[in-house]
Amino acid sequence: MLEKINLKGKIKKDAYEKQFTKLSENLGALQRELRDADVPVIILFEGFRGSWRGLLINKIISALDPRGFSVFSASKTTEKQKQGPFFGQFWKELPAAGQISIHHRAWYFLKNEHTVGDKDEASEWYNISYEEINTFEKELTDEGYIIIKIFTHLSAKQQEKNLTKGFQTSGSQWESLTPGGIEGIDYKAYEKVYEEMLAKTDMAYAPWHIIPMESKRVGIIETLKVLIAELTEALNKHKLQKAEQGRKALQKKNAADETIPDILSTYDLSKTISEKAYEKKYKALRQKIGELQLKLYEKKISTIVAFEGWDAGGKGGAIKRLTAGLDPLGYKVNPVCAPNDWEKKFHYLWRFWQHIPAPGEAAIFDRTWYGRVLVERVEGFATAQEWHRAYQEINDMEAQWTKQGIIVQKFWMQIDKDEQYNRFKAREEDPDKTWKITAEDWRNREKWDAYVGAVNEMLYRTDTEEAPWTVVEAKNKFYARLKVLETMIKRMEKVLKKQEK
Amino acid sequence: MLEKINLKGKIKKDAYEKQFTKLSENLGALQRELRDADVPVIILFEGFRGSWRGLLINKIISALDPRGFSVFSASKTTEKQKQGPFFGQFWKELPAAGQISIHHRAWYFLKNEHTVGDKDEASEWYNISYEEINTFEKELTDEGYIIIKIFTHLSAKQQEKNLTKGFQTSGSQWESLTPGGIEGIDYKAYEKVYEEMLAKTDMAYAPWHIIPMESKRVGIIETLKVLIAELTEALNKHKLQKAEQGRKALQKKNAADETIPDILSTYDLSKTISEKAYEKKYKALRQKIGELQLKLYEKKISTIVAFEGWDAGGKGGAIKRLTAGLDPLGYKVNPVCAPNDWEKKFHYLWRFWQHIPAPGEAAIFDRTWYGRVLVERVEGFATAQEWHRAYQEINDMEAQWTKQGIIVQKFWMQIDKDEQYNRFKAREEDPDKTWKITAEDWRNREKWDAYVGAVNEMLYRTDTEEAPWTVVEAKNKFYARLKVLETMIKRMEKVLKKQEK
Repeated sequence: MLEKINLKGKIKKDAYEKQFTKLSENLGALQRELRDADVPVIILFEGFRGSWRGLLINKIISALDPRGFSVFSASKTTEKQKQGPFFGQFWKELPAAGQISIHHRAWYFLKNEHTVGDKDEASEWYNISYEEINTFEKELTDEGYIIIKIFTHLSAKQQEKNLTKGFQTSGSQWESLTPGGIEGIDYKAYEKVYEEMLAKTDMAYAPWHIIPMESKRVGIIETLKVLIAELTEALNKHKLQKAEQGRKALQKKNAADETIPDILSTYDLSKTISEKAYEKKYKALRQKIGELQLKLYEKKISTIVAFEGWDAGGKGGAIKRLTAGLDPLGYKVNPVCAPNDWEKKFHYLWRFWQHIPAPGEAAIFDRTWYGRVLVERVEGFATAQEWHRAYQEINDMEAQWTKQGIIVQKFWMQIDKDEQYNRFKAREEDPDKTWKITAEDWRNREKWDAYVGAVNEMLYRTDTEEAPWTVVEAKNKFYARLKVLETMIKRMEKVLKKQEK
Repeated sequence: MLEKINLKGKIKKDAYEKQFTKLSENLGALQRELRDADVPVIILFEGFRGSWRGLLINKIISALDPRGFSVFSASKTTEKQKQGPFFGQFWKELPAAGQISIHHRAWYFLKNEHTVGDKDEASEWYNISYEEINTFEKELTDEGYIIIKIFTHLSAKQQEKNLTKGFQTSGSQWESLTPGGIEGIDYKAYEKVYEEMLAKTDMAYAPWHIIPMESKRVGIIETLKVLIAELTEALNKHKLQKAEQGRKALQKKNAADETIPDILSTYDLSKTISEKAYEKKYKALRQKIGELQLKLYEKKISTIVAFEGWDAGGKGGAIKRLTAGLDPLGYKVNPVCAPNDWEKKFHYLWRFWQHIPAPGEAAIFDRTWYGRVLVERVEGFATAQEWHRAYQEINDMEAQWTKQGIIVQKFWMQIDKDEQYNRFKAREEDPDKTWKITAEDWRNREKWDAYVGAVNEMLYRTDTEEAPWTVVEAKNKFYARLKVLETMIKRMEKVLKKQEK
């Protein structure tokens, strides 16, 4: 692949300057159009060391309005970030709608440096597959992100020249603030790795563009042309899609779904325990979970607990009892409402990536990312295509967390329709609780059956071994609270036991 | 002060439980009222080790809606944070309007641990004064933040008992996830430090409340009572102020200001340089500043550059030329617009603290925190009291930065009214630039004289030795760009020279 690239091209200074000015103006105008259209863009630079990536980025951003882009570098990845899931930092660096994120090396670099370059202790962390990368990029482009991947290419001879002489003779050309020399750079070894990378990750939704950087001028002009062509295409596609959306909304999707079993109906809601027996058991469990929290903290094992359930299903009460025995510095409860205007400017999973717990800590979610396949599905806020796709996207996200050693546990608080009615009424009549109940709760209730279908499908499609669902029979609140605590304790103990081996 | 506190109190279990339930309900209701009133609250816990702070916090948050608070701990301060200004992390942890931030130890702890406890390499960093703390708290309360400071007190005997036995016998009582023993804890030494702290920082706007924690039950009840009393008062005050605001707006403030010199008129706008001479000089300076950037990066010296100036004064062009020679991974341009809805929920300086550069890097601001004394003053978005106070607040903030070794440089891009007119017209007539000019620009122009007064006062009051203003004669853009570069280079060289000594 790389061999076929013509590196011989040249361009005269005058011609270069003229072209550069014209192309810069085009790119600036495109940026404004993309901003107005709310299209988010990710531009990625990977390539041989010494191939003027820094210079290239500076030339490109000189054409852009600084209000519209940010520059990131994977060479700045911190030790703390390496304790979290691999893609965590990149989720946080996603551009908002209408913005551009420019990456001076990113996920490819982290993977490849591990393959060729310096090994370090966290080598397990870098060990992701090209399939995982493709999945990550696919999930972004599915949600409307534009990904443009630039590979900067040059010959071994030119690389040596640049790395030994070039960087000393010019103050405005850098190798990412750490101007290393040629020492230890094995061109052939990198070339092999890059060939594989280019072959395995050159996808229609996120293709590679190989830029000849043997001559700086040629490389700059070529990069500008690539960006302009790609962004123009993206913009046209975006306009087309917008136009089509109206038409599509009319055609109700009627996919021949496979039969989803009625999982919820298999749970026996008559399960109960007396208050007195509860009090006694609860005290012991509360103390136990506090001890386990400290052990997990010492071993730096993090936990993510997800609560979903019917309105008035007892999520809040269960969370309160779960956390009463925990050191408040070691956990955080994240209540999830409808996304605000800022959050809406991102991929729908972005906001949950902001709350990944620090090593050894716990993040408890009061409602979760499953909103996509529950309320957004039932209310039609997500298209059928979007929520169908979401099961896999969510499984992928949770797999990334568990791969990093995070305990993921999900609870569905199950009550029946009559019990919900009784609880709504009780809330309305209690002056201290009436703020808890709104007209929206009553409206949601009318869609009970649609929700049953959505919950069953969610349980069916996203109950995985590493990130399991536990349906909690929550008609009796004492029974429910104990079941949540017991489930958590069992999982924590199992993980600790496994660690000790 | 501490000696006078009665530590002997007791309370029976039944009475405690009854009171706790009632007070919890009150606190929960107050939280909802404060949320509706958009009042931000900071609750601080400091005190002897082993005084059940963790337990106390857990009891309090059990009464609160998790959507309304966050818990922070200064024992989690990272090494990275210690490379930035002392109060930087606390600015980031400010609650939004209507929210509560709970601190399990905060700025007092960081200062005091340095005085009594473990010393570490960054000891210079901890060395802040009580005056600096008072200033920080004053600036927050001036902007409507409520600060409640709780000091947890207990006897030496009880402390020993708690730290040797108590923490092992109960899983639900912690010393901030790191259950250290009694070893090395010198009660007397801490007592002395705390006495001084309580004496010097017990201010009317942020008073201390000493809570006897000899008995856990008494301490919990007392703390709840203090919180309820303080928050009720804060709420009443808030309502009163709201009612008064209408009246006050009618009385136009007519303060007898001291005479501010017309600083702007002393600059000679006829200064000029030919394009050819500029091109030659510029190339050398661009290379020079790139070299200096790398040196500062290696020495971990950060830079903050602030650009203010007339509309069409050439800020954007100057920033572009300033950064063209810089490695894009080492700087970030932060364009500042009017605060968005989320930013409006915080102290007006909060959003700038989000952009403190990492060690060795540079943050360039295209418009700045001086908006408070420029556009907000002229347009009446800030009250006279608010913008009068802002000069000192801004000087304090910049002093905190320079104290941490950050280079702070501020530029005012100066043109005259005729030149602005010409540039506006030119922009309107150029199809590639017409997006740069809006009706608002023309409206601002009508207030030219008011702005002159505001700019003069800003330059007069905030031109400090460590964070100086440079007025740039910007009628000739070539001259202006060179002056910006030369000024920056001179400052960078001076700082580097000083370091070498």
